[in-house]
Amino acid sequence: MVRGRISRLSVRDVRFPTSLGGHGSDAMHTDPDYSAAYVVLETDAEDGLKGYGITFTLGKGTEVVACAVNALAHHVLNKDLGDIVGDFRGFYRQLTSDGQLRWIGPEKGVVHLATAAVLNAVWDLWAKQEGKPLWKLLVDMDPRMLLSCIDFRYITDVLTEEEAYGILQKGQIGKKERERQMLMHGYPAYTTSCAWLGYSDDTLKQLCTEALQDGWTRFKVKVGADLQDDIRRCRLIRNMIGPEKTLMMDANQRWDVPEAIEWMSKLAEFKPLWIEEPTSPDDILGHATISKCHNRVIFKQLLQAKALQFLQIDSCRLGSVNENLSVLLMAKKFEIPVCPHAGGVGLCELVQHLIIFDFISVSASLKNRMCEYVDHLHEHFRYPVTIKKASYMPPKDAGYSTEMKEESVKKHQYPDGEVWKKLLAAQNN
Amino acid sequence: MVRGRISRLSVRDVRFPTSLGGHGSDAMHTDPDYSAAYVVLETDAEDGLKGYGITFTLGKGTEVVACAVNALAHHVLNKDLGDIVGDFRGFYRQLTSDGQLRWIGPEKGVVHLATAAVLNAVWDLWAKQEGKPLWKLLVDMDPRMLLSCIDFRYITDVLTEEEAYGILQKGQIGKKERERQMLMHGYPAYTTSCAWLGYSDDTLKQLCTEALQDGWTRFKVKVGADLQDDIRRCRLIRNMIGPEKTLMMDANQRWDVPEAIEWMSKLAEFKPLWIEEPTSPDDILGHATISKCHNRVIFKQLLQAKALQFLQIDSCRLGSVNENLSVLLMAKKFEIPVCPHAGGVGLCELVQHLIIFDFISVSASLKNRMCEYVDHLHEHFRYPVTIKKASYMPPKDAGYSTEMKEESVKKHQYPDGEVWKKLLAAQNN
Repeated sequence: MVRGRISRLSVRDVRFPTSLGGHGSDAMHTDPDYSAAYVVLETDAEDGLKGYGITFTLGKGTEVVACAVNALAHHVLNKDLGDIVGDFRGFYRQLTSDGQLRWIGPEKGVVHLATAAVLNAVWDLWAKQEGKPLWKLLVDMDPRMLLSCIDFRYITDVLTEEEAYGILQKGQIGKKERERQMLMHGYPAYTTSCAWLGYSDDTLKQLCTEALQDGWTRFKVKVGADLQDDIRRCRLIRNMIGPEKTLMMDANQRWDVPEAIEWMSKLAEFKPLWIEEPTSPDDILGHATISKCHNRVIFKQLLQAKALQFLQIDSCRLGSVNENLSVLLMAKKFEIPVCPHAGGVGLCELVQHLIIFDFISVSASLKNRMCEYVDHLHEHFRYPVTIKKASYMPPKDAGYSTEMKEESVKKHQYPDGEVWKKLLAAQNN
Repeated sequence: MVRGRISRLSVRDVRFPTSLGGHGSDAMHTDPDYSAAYVVLETDAEDGLKGYGITFTLGKGTEVVACAVNALAHHVLNKDLGDIVGDFRGFYRQLTSDGQLRWIGPEKGVVHLATAAVLNAVWDLWAKQEGKPLWKLLVDMDPRMLLSCIDFRYITDVLTEEEAYGILQKGQIGKKERERQMLMHGYPAYTTSCAWLGYSDDTLKQLCTEALQDGWTRFKVKVGADLQDDIRRCRLIRNMIGPEKTLMMDANQRWDVPEAIEWMSKLAEFKPLWIEEPTSPDDILGHATISKCHNRVIFKQLLQAKALQFLQIDSCRLGSVNENLSVLLMAKKFEIPVCPHAGGVGLCELVQHLIIFDFISVSASLKNRMCEYVDHLHEHFRYPVTIKKASYMPPKDAGYSTEMKEESVKKHQYPDGEVWKKLLAAQNN
């Protein structure tokens, strides 16, 4: 089915001035401009289909990620798409183990974000050529083919390919029924839109009221900058949502380990389900409950060390679908619920595919599971998420939902798009 | 003493075509072109002194690190050097915790390498203004001042500032005597120059013979690509150096954990002192003996988990002198010998300062300690290392030995330097 040779790769630096409204602000990232390095792949096939890939960034530094995408381009250009997906493990390793480039990673930071953007575009293209949304491409894929997309390097002490095959085989049972369930009811979500750190109490109250009216039952609040402030805000939100609904907290890496313990003992009365990123994302031994990580090796150890009770995958920080598959399978082995990280630019659009696949083909459970939702920037995407009754409804369009509206991209390109020209001119006056 | 405002920051992409001779080749990096992002800081002070900083890379991707240096530049430009070193912890945190840029790290990969290059230049400038080699600047510095250079974020569960102060106070005893000892005999080194993976057996034999004649007693061999090959090469080198001399092995992250155990059981007969980087640098729980790490949080856990018996600092992968100081102090607390990583471009020149300081002011011991040495590319530095009787002799020139010869830089700039113009033209023919 797949066809064509990659004839062009372009990357653009797209930034949204979210810092102007305090959207996305937390204890470590006080003024983020939600941004993306946006990759477009073209082929010489006659179908004219393109693959779109993004990785999420916070403004400054997006140009560094774009630079890294260009450094990876020679691995992609002039390759047949069929050869790429036919040995996707080999292709993944080529990108992540380039003998010169891996020094500036490996599999972390800028180069890994760039790898994700490129691979996300490949997956989008593949799914489009197959005429399926990405989740459905994965659900329908032969287990052996699916495993051939995963690089098991560095995780075989915890999960071998044969074990992974066993998990996927087991996942075949009841698959059809679960797919129907998803199409009918969607995947449960929680909202982070109400309680960014930079919002005033009035804004928080208003957004929380609206969210309750919209049927949301699970809420996340950003904490970690000032304890008294956190106590006031957590009390406010707990009082509004009542004792039965779910509240999560996120410190965004703000604390040292002793500080995290002390701080959280003070916030325990508001009954958080979890505390997210209490400390450095590199600190496996110091970790408490939930973590966004940069690669499968870190996730492996968090599982081995029993250092988390929930696991957050990320569609743009990990090495695309390929690496997320390995993490979903490890989480299944350890029976740790996966609750994806989303928000940002397009993270909701992408990660819904992965978690819907996970439910249908791997975890087969919704217990203690939900996917983050943030009500931001969806208007810039051609295939935005559909939320119904606080659930993600499975996308129906072919692809990975990564494509942005060309007009949005043009307007928000940094620094030459219309939006930034105006803002930068205003700053200079 | 410090003076001037940073008036200019420039960064250049300097590459040496080492892959042509197989120098620097190992199981994961088969064709490295040893390279550096090279930063120069200028001030408006009348002394005309400049600060030079490098970070080491392997060729491709150096332009990405240079791009990240430029993204950090606004934190440095127009700052008074006195303000920077007067609150070096604050300055370090500004660079590593920028609310937008930290997303593409944090404190790892490209942005952390860029941070190291910038801060190495600051330290070089500071030492030059004080008219001292960097090691001596550190040795003479008041312990409180020295601690004010360290960011203790994420490590206070293992080392508090007060504990670190206690270690440094204890280190004052016998300091003068140890400084004399260093000036007289230097710091013991081992050589990695003989046994790169890409060398033929004949080359290996010849280099080994020469090294023995030069008085080397400690040797490192690269392993991990092919077991039979490793057995042959290890036997060859062990036979040449005899049973008493020291042999180390380095797999450069090639293996999974079970593979590492199996492979090393086969190489055990050659009595290696250590196996270096058996697996992913992110795999704390899987680690065996020795590791180069990307930040203090990873080192902290390796120490906590008793996952290493030797610790390798790196002058360019960690966040400059500042972060290395925190790791030296943690290693002292756990009484783990530090054996620095060197080689590359300028790593020997830089790290000798740190390990000489460590002996004089922190560890006070040479037991099981030695610093890597590779006989490459020193000719491009203005103040190259001096090796006598297989030991590093303390540098006497002011600064951090980071300055390269302008002619070398010009010739090797990528892609416009004379050397690369010729090579690229030859490739295209």
